[in-house]
Amino acid sequence: MLAEGGNRTNYPGELDRKDYEAFFTPSLKWVQLCSTGFSDNVTESIVEGRVTLTNAPGLHTVPIAESVLAAMLDHAKNFGQRRIDQQAHAWRRLDNDELCGRTVLIIGLGNIGKAVARLCGAFEMTVIGTKRRVEPVANVDTVFATNELKRHLSAADYIVIAAPLTAETECLLDDGAFAAMKSSAYLINVGRGRVIEESALIAALEEHRIAGAYLDAFDHEPLDDKHPLWNMDSVFIVPHDSHSSPYIGDRMVDIFCDNLRRYVAGEPLLNICDPQKGY
Amino acid sequence: MLAEGGNRTNYPGELDRKDYEAFFTPSLKWVQLCSTGFSDNVTESIVEGRVTLTNAPGLHTVPIAESVLAAMLDHAKNFGQRRIDQQAHAWRRLDNDELCGRTVLIIGLGNIGKAVARLCGAFEMTVIGTKRRVEPVANVDTVFATNELKRHLSAADYIVIAAPLTAETECLLDDGAFAAMKSSAYLINVGRGRVIEESALIAALEEHRIAGAYLDAFDHEPLDDKHPLWNMDSVFIVPHDSHSSPYIGDRMVDIFCDNLRRYVAGEPLLNICDPQKGY
Repeated sequence: MLAEGGNRTNYPGELDRKDYEAFFTPSLKWVQLCSTGFSDNVTESIVEGRVTLTNAPGLHTVPIAESVLAAMLDHAKNFGQRRIDQQAHAWRRLDNDELCGRTVLIIGLGNIGKAVARLCGAFEMTVIGTKRRVEPVANVDTVFATNELKRHLSAADYIVIAAPLTAETECLLDDGAFAAMKSSAYLINVGRGRVIEESALIAALEEHRIAGAYLDAFDHEPLDDKHPLWNMDSVFIVPHDSHSSPYIGDRMVDIFCDNLRRYVAGEPLLNICDPQKGY
Repeated sequence: MLAEGGNRTNYPGELDRKDYEAFFTPSLKWVQLCSTGFSDNVTESIVEGRVTLTNAPGLHTVPIAESVLAAMLDHAKNFGQRRIDQQAHAWRRLDNDELCGRTVLIIGLGNIGKAVARLCGAFEMTVIGTKRRVEPVANVDTVFATNELKRHLSAADYIVIAAPLTAETECLLDDGAFAAMKSSAYLINVGRGRVIEESALIAALEEHRIAGAYLDAFDHEPLDDKHPLWNMDSVFIVPHDSHSSPYIGDRMVDIFCDNLRRYVAGEPLLNICDPQKGY
């Protein structure tokens, strides 16, 4: 089980690729990840079927969905500016927005996307989103395919990336996508960094073509000290830990013990990753 | 109608008492407030029934309930510290909490308290609270009378003040109340400042007997530049504008026009304030 101990979960970048590959001895049969995304963990021996890779979908659903709502409310209620005002002892009223009545577009209606949709429904938002298999989803008003994204982007006040990194989602948000967004749109990425074309994002932010972004995932992590995103007022940088929760350790041990029991009993493992699909 | 124009709503402190009383000429019949709380607006002629005071309950329900959830999530997800870390370009993971499974105690289950309860229910929190008339309330697990508050305080992870200022609620949160709280309790005041005994709050914060507070209302507003609350790391000061919303102006005009039509037609006005009850 790839875990550092405590409640912390390892992600590539924390355990480097060389360390990770050193586990792949000829006797290795199975790797249980403590994460939902797994694209960065696929090795040749996994592709060839000599090693089984299992992930932990749903493990981070609750804390990440809560973090997405936290980011949306932080933006709507001007909490960033309010903290600056407090430091200056400035009693200064600001114009807040409401989530009620706004539209959220969720890219990727998997476990996390569905949980975000449910919470956004409670705030009486309009919820639209993409799903690989287009089918009705609870709490979602309109579901469409990823290749139809661009014509729906202009409706969105909030855009939430909760999709895995696949050939279809890599650089999905490029210049053309940012050009389709409202200038008041707020982007939240709790998926993978490379779903966004970073240079296009930075240009859109610099030119105020979108209102701002909450970013939990990046092309290269940790984010370089000199990276321009750190200093942008409209950007909220989160060090890939929106999933942080006191309960992850307990939930992960339950998932691992269940799979370990299956492994010992020769039963099929749960949550086997398919490197072809990438999710 | 007491409003400054635009979407802003006047509160005492913005319109001072002397200015306000100057409106009370012998011909004045009716004052429509743009607020829910009205205790500070009661004058002798209102008590004597020469002037009718009407308020606007429900006007601020949506934006204030959203702000309460924003405050809870801001605390659970360490957004204050995360912004400090971003300024330092520090890629540093923090231990977040979940709202899911936590207990919120709502003091005052009126329009705002009920809306907070509904949203907290969506986050799968346990919801308890006080109500003048003890009766079942949707989305609330336990309803109790205000005089039973102290024995329920120790169960609460979040304590939300959404009560009006009355003889029963004035200084309701005193030293004894703070002593009953968990050291991890987070206090949110979107009611009136004087529901809290301010010196008791400051002592509890200084001695880390509670985790922190989001304060939207104060004994004296605007908060004095030298007030010790400004500089407390665990305190989030909001200048009595958690109700801010782009829709308040439109909603208020609808409420006023409805009452004006009734006034002209000689029909009973809606939302007449009862100075005896104070809410």
